[in-house]
Amino acid sequence: MGMAIADTRVSIAALEGFCFRVLTASGVREPDARTTTAALVTPDSWGVFTHGTKLLRGYARRLRAGGLRVDVSPKIAGQGPGWALIDGQSALGQVTSAFAVEESIRKARQCGVGFVTVRNSCHFGAAGYYAWLASQAGMIGIAMANDMPSVAAPGSKGPVLGSNPIAFACPGGSGDPIMLDMSIATVAGGKVFARCKRGEPIPPGWLVDDQGRPTQDGALYPERASLAPMGGHKGYGIGLFIEILAGVLSGAAVTRQVGSWLFGDFQAPTNHGAAFLAIDVGAIMELEAFYRRIAALVGEIHAAPTAHGAPRLMLPGEIEWRNRRRAEAEGIELPADVVASLSEAAAESAEPFVI
Amino acid sequence: MGMAIADTRVSIAALEGFCFRVLTASGVREPDARTTTAALVTPDSWGVFTHGTKLLRGYARRLRAGGLRVDVSPKIAGQGPGWALIDGQSALGQVTSAFAVEESIRKARQCGVGFVTVRNSCHFGAAGYYAWLASQAGMIGIAMANDMPSVAAPGSKGPVLGSNPIAFACPGGSGDPIMLDMSIATVAGGKVFARCKRGEPIPPGWLVDDQGRPTQDGALYPERASLAPMGGHKGYGIGLFIEILAGVLSGAAVTRQVGSWLFGDFQAPTNHGAAFLAIDVGAIMELEAFYRRIAALVGEIHAAPTAHGAPRLMLPGEIEWRNRRRAEAEGIELPADVVASLSEAAAESAEPFVI
Repeated sequence: MGMAIADTRVSIAALEGFCFRVLTASGVREPDARTTTAALVTPDSWGVFTHGTKLLRGYARRLRAGGLRVDVSPKIAGQGPGWALIDGQSALGQVTSAFAVEESIRKARQCGVGFVTVRNSCHFGAAGYYAWLASQAGMIGIAMANDMPSVAAPGSKGPVLGSNPIAFACPGGSGDPIMLDMSIATVAGGKVFARCKRGEPIPPGWLVDDQGRPTQDGALYPERASLAPMGGHKGYGIGLFIEILAGVLSGAAVTRQVGSWLFGDFQAPTNHGAAFLAIDVGAIMELEAFYRRIAALVGEIHAAPTAHGAPRLMLPGEIEWRNRRRAEAEGIELPADVVASLSEAAAESAEPFVI
Repeated sequence: MGMAIADTRVSIAALEGFCFRVLTASGVREPDARTTTAALVTPDSWGVFTHGTKLLRGYARRLRAGGLRVDVSPKIAGQGPGWALIDGQSALGQVTSAFAVEESIRKARQCGVGFVTVRNSCHFGAAGYYAWLASQAGMIGIAMANDMPSVAAPGSKGPVLGSNPIAFACPGGSGDPIMLDMSIATVAGGKVFARCKRGEPIPPGWLVDDQGRPTQDGALYPERASLAPMGGHKGYGIGLFIEILAGVLSGAAVTRQVGSWLFGDFQAPTNHGAAFLAIDVGAIMELEAFYRRIAALVGEIHAAPTAHGAPRLMLPGEIEWRNRRRAEAEGIELPADVVASLSEAAAESAEPFVI
């Protein structure tokens, strides 16, 4: 629709078009550019701007420098009836992850459940996107990845595990899917940066300093502070099992071996790991019955009494679907930091910044 | 070894013998009594006394009243190459869950991954025990179950979900397995009771009162307070997906439909749900290589710098294996509440309380 730079409201199609052009200008083949565009614009349409097209600039830099390769495709390095091991060969993490989800769905159609673990990938963006892809195929989907350490363990002085995202999605029949996308940190690092930028103090429980003490000084993060694990040993423990499933079992880099996709050497592969699980609902239960049971659970939660003044309880994903419908009708209101990042991505790719 | 009641240190074998006798006296067939005994005594040997033989008294009451049936076996109600649906037929939750884990392992040996969901079960005790069973077969095991609501959702006035335990276990080769066993609540209800008994205040973040407000008044729990979900919306979201996998997908009771195994009608089935996942490590990666990689991860965590005065970081399960080795060498030091519960179980079953 050709909006000017100052205008931050964009249509989904226009944002997709821009993203696609930057990717192809960076050497990405058209099918891979389409896959990556969908994985980046969809989270923006959900209002998850930390994991949408804001990531494009960093990916494009790595694509041009060679740390992300444009001349390869993810390949199956091993497989059995219900599992596969994918070697991403340093293609875009979005390309490899979408390929892996498809494979997990294919395996689940054969066996009822499909498990796919991935090596030689990169940052994959929004975990929820991949779980949601599986849910679109009638699967309960789970997606997870490891990353370079940024999260403390109980008692540690510094970071021990990555923020190791995990997402779950369940198809909702005529209702919306249920989708949970979370990291193992109490809050994501982006929220620390945002508070600092606004000059606000960091709430207790978010950060641990480099002596292992709780801190509310956001300026220390990330050099001299780590994110606190959600629920203490529980977040740490979940993160460790994500590391095992996505990193150890796949042959990917583990913890400190994982490269920084954003700040590391743009010419070097990061070797992130990931893992995907798909469960074929329709194989286990007649779909109509399953959707009736999901609708009953959703109805029960919506009808649950809430604390004085609180609106009705929400299902995980409910905010995202509301945002998505608004984005389809009215376009996406991109935050300034996303617009600035896209503008730089355009300049660096010698593409006009037209969204 | 025939210790007197006052003596709370017991050998594993003696505790197993007593547990087996109470179960068979309650009508449980010998193979099922052996299975249940192992599932109850093992957590005690790990030091997890809230989920060990303390549960025996309640199970025995239900066995005698008929809410738990002794004349049935769990059966496969549906299956495919990589999945199975188990109908527990109101047998002991331990019997059904052990059967389901075995089935998940069998499926995983065929397909690389096995998913089993369970209905008509009951309280299954320690989730970690079943994940650990899978790890003993060279699998990465995941176990989960639903339960009657006791945990609040963000913004709710009362409980919305059960404590919905989830456990993960990974084989460690020549090293110990890694095992995480957690509920979705910030802390388990048992810890609230223990603080109250000692007259200690409840730390902030543990409880939510019946108006949805944080409370530190432990006397309100459970009638007029709920457990707070771990990490707010994250614990709630994980709990919801456990409810879907263990309850909705299996055809078991969901949330408020689940009977109380402890306080409910002893004659009525509780219809708990559960779910088990097994991933065959050796199918995906050469086992020696996997164990080397796990050992490297464990070594890295043990070598991580700790906060001033803190001992080295621990892996999930590390305390349990240390306790197990002590229990094997020196016996188990049973807490007074467990001894009291066992003593009652003995009296109610007309069995001599000899451990």
